[in-house]
Amino acid sequence: MAQKPSLPKGTRDFSPIEVAKRNYIVDIIKKQFELFGFHPIETPSFENSETLMGKYGEEGDRLIFKILNSGDYLKKIDEDLYSSKNSTKITGKISEKALRYDLTVPFARYVVQHQNEIVFPFKRYQIQPVWRADRPQKGRFREFYQCDADVVGSKSLWQEVDFIQLYDRVFTQLNLQGVTIKINNRKVLSGIAEVIGASDKLIDFTVALDKLDKIGEDGVKKEMLEKGISESAIEKVKPLFNFTGTTSKKIDKLKELLVSSEEGMRGVEELEFIVNSISEIPLKTSNLDLDVTLARGLNYYTGAIYEVSAPETVKLGSIGGGGRYDDLTGIFGLKDVSGVGISFGLDRIYLVLEELGLFPETVAPQTKALFINFGNEEALYCLRAVNRLRNEGIITELYPDHTKMKKQMGYADKRGIGYVILAGTSEISNNTFTVKNMHSGTQEEMNFEELKMILQ
Amino acid sequence: MAQKPSLPKGTRDFSPIEVAKRNYIVDIIKKQFELFGFHPIETPSFENSETLMGKYGEEGDRLIFKILNSGDYLKKIDEDLYSSKNSTKITGKISEKALRYDLTVPFARYVVQHQNEIVFPFKRYQIQPVWRADRPQKGRFREFYQCDADVVGSKSLWQEVDFIQLYDRVFTQLNLQGVTIKINNRKVLSGIAEVIGASDKLIDFTVALDKLDKIGEDGVKKEMLEKGISESAIEKVKPLFNFTGTTSKKIDKLKELLVSSEEGMRGVEELEFIVNSISEIPLKTSNLDLDVTLARGLNYYTGAIYEVSAPETVKLGSIGGGGRYDDLTGIFGLKDVSGVGISFGLDRIYLVLEELGLFPETVAPQTKALFINFGNEEALYCLRAVNRLRNEGIITELYPDHTKMKKQMGYADKRGIGYVILAGTSEISNNTFTVKNMHSGTQEEMNFEELKMILQ
Repeated sequence: MAQKPSLPKGTRDFSPIEVAKRNYIVDIIKKQFELFGFHPIETPSFENSETLMGKYGEEGDRLIFKILNSGDYLKKIDEDLYSSKNSTKITGKISEKALRYDLTVPFARYVVQHQNEIVFPFKRYQIQPVWRADRPQKGRFREFYQCDADVVGSKSLWQEVDFIQLYDRVFTQLNLQGVTIKINNRKVLSGIAEVIGASDKLIDFTVALDKLDKIGEDGVKKEMLEKGISESAIEKVKPLFNFTGTTSKKIDKLKELLVSSEEGMRGVEELEFIVNSISEIPLKTSNLDLDVTLARGLNYYTGAIYEVSAPETVKLGSIGGGGRYDDLTGIFGLKDVSGVGISFGLDRIYLVLEELGLFPETVAPQTKALFINFGNEEALYCLRAVNRLRNEGIITELYPDHTKMKKQMGYADKRGIGYVILAGTSEISNNTFTVKNMHSGTQEEMNFEELKMILQ
Repeated sequence: MAQKPSLPKGTRDFSPIEVAKRNYIVDIIKKQFELFGFHPIETPSFENSETLMGKYGEEGDRLIFKILNSGDYLKKIDEDLYSSKNSTKITGKISEKALRYDLTVPFARYVVQHQNEIVFPFKRYQIQPVWRADRPQKGRFREFYQCDADVVGSKSLWQEVDFIQLYDRVFTQLNLQGVTIKINNRKVLSGIAEVIGASDKLIDFTVALDKLDKIGEDGVKKEMLEKGISESAIEKVKPLFNFTGTTSKKIDKLKELLVSSEEGMRGVEELEFIVNSISEIPLKTSNLDLDVTLARGLNYYTGAIYEVSAPETVKLGSIGGGGRYDDLTGIFGLKDVSGVGISFGLDRIYLVLEELGLFPETVAPQTKALFINFGNEEALYCLRAVNRLRNEGIITELYPDHTKMKKQMGYADKRGIGYVILAGTSEISNNTFTVKNMHSGTQEEMNFEELKMILQ
């Protein structure tokens, strides 16, 4: 019996129009990466398990797809371990490779492995799929693309500035108005932790603070007290409860608040440098917003933190993010190489452009004309013309089969082909073509040069 | 202790220049696919195991990479089976997904699954990686890209003709002279099998015949006899021992030889149609060669068989192949859909272009100018210019750190950047830039408009 075809959970086929729309986004991102001097690299889809395991926390380890060893892989397991039937312990013995979980760890591995060929600061971009055994839901897939750009080998804050400009240029090219680039700084978060008295309360604190709009100041305070943050600590960070106004006003408030924290003050200075530089070279379409509740990947980043929000009318959350990490390559033995990078969420950006109707009308190359097949002799006459039109870069096709006119016309119609070309005995002897405009329905006999003109 | 980074056997990192060269090839192939009216699709990297298993023979099943189920995957195995410790049998219980082995089976699955959205004949192309647990060797990897174009839903031979034209256009665009497109037909091979008396001897027969150049007619005959092909059968197919001359001469010989085989004669007629049509619309750079020893994927193809050889000076063998298969989608329940397709071997083509020095000099986008960093004030002045140059699509960068001039110049030099721009206090007050040509060593002070002119 034939198999009923289906796809694994959380994976997708992409139809021609979907591929074309995805490529439209990717090509714009690529073009801007290159304009900013980033160079592409590619790494293998699977890595040795020890390269990936332990880099994303316990949850991450669980979500990594493992590849089964080839051959008689059970043979090598000793009897004691085998009889334990312990999946976690046995995994390490029957699987040596795993699918890439993100592009950052493979990039760190790449930098260390190729350090002698690389010119630092190394600016690389990478656009490849990653895989996570996550529960699929709207906008979350088990196979999805990441589009990353990173610089390693320099601590200069000019890079933080450049990445904001890069984000802005991509969204400008996509005609996507109203994007907000939120920035924060890990050191500011450390400073807040100092001020509230305990770094282990920091996440509770930012989560509560983030609800200010919804539950008001009293609600936030209540939640903080419940989480064990003291009344006096809350009093100290009170300026954060009214954290509005211009970015420079926000920076003034942070300075006041974090004056007692050396690390916090360094974070504020970094933010100030970035914000001032951006004000000198203003963004074209995006908004820059200082958001102290932004704490993504807390343990990972050491300086700047970015997160990009879709325009407010689209309820979709983050469409990109990134930040600075001071010691990413350390895990592979190369110390003190600072990195900073950003990522674009291709699937989310796709949904945003779709919802806002921002894809251009002709996002895919389109066949300009279909030559009708009236039999072998006519077909050959047409194929000669097809061949010459292809020389001019004009996309044309001969209908492969000599079947009913209606079927051939239907094909042109369904595929949205603008012109249908008919050439029978009379056209062949006149060395002409009858050209039917599928839109207007009119048709006209003409020679090859005239045909070429029309299709160009 | 830090891990020493390494890659799984048979996989590769691609450096920026390698990515650029690969993209150069892929972009040309893509462009031609589109010129011929093919549309791109993409399928997931992994499929349900039952979609792939059993489609590539026993050897293929072994070479498919299987993905381990998540969670406590051993729990579900019953004790009897578990205690057998039989890797092959247990695999089916602990792995439900597998990495794509080629693009053809996923394409067949796609066509069946989306048959109601597809307009037939459906012309699709697909350029994605595939994975095989093969023993790695020169030019053979465990992860590699396939570039496939196929048409399904029509039996017209005009498609066979079009694919030869497509091959020729790609190699022409790559400036690759001397490629040979070899064609044969499965029905001709069946005819030969009939004539030599047994279809199970067909592979032995073609393998022996293929050695004609090396071991001579007597050697070939000897090998055939050893393989159990009768003296009288060999006598009958004697014309194949002197199978030279023009393609039309070869076709005449085949007609004579296969006159008693109905299927064989149909194959010859198909070849004749293709060869005659190509002679009417001659190829630009490639040679077309009828090769009766060509028997790739014997059980798979039902009509035309293609194989493309690199120019003879490069000892590399096949750089592409394909053919017609009459019932690919049948395995997924959609009967009588004929397909024909070709594939380009990206890795092999890369090696050929490299060996023949055929990559263009500037295959990658290159940073035109590096602005030297003399401190924050100067850097901001430069970044304004960088921003304006980027508006014009000119790739420029500011060196991120305010370090020694020598280091910054060294960076420009190693990256092959043509111009270095210096702007200190004097340039800022003059609103100018000092531009150093890294090739000639000369330098000149100029305003922004002049700078833009030089870099454009």
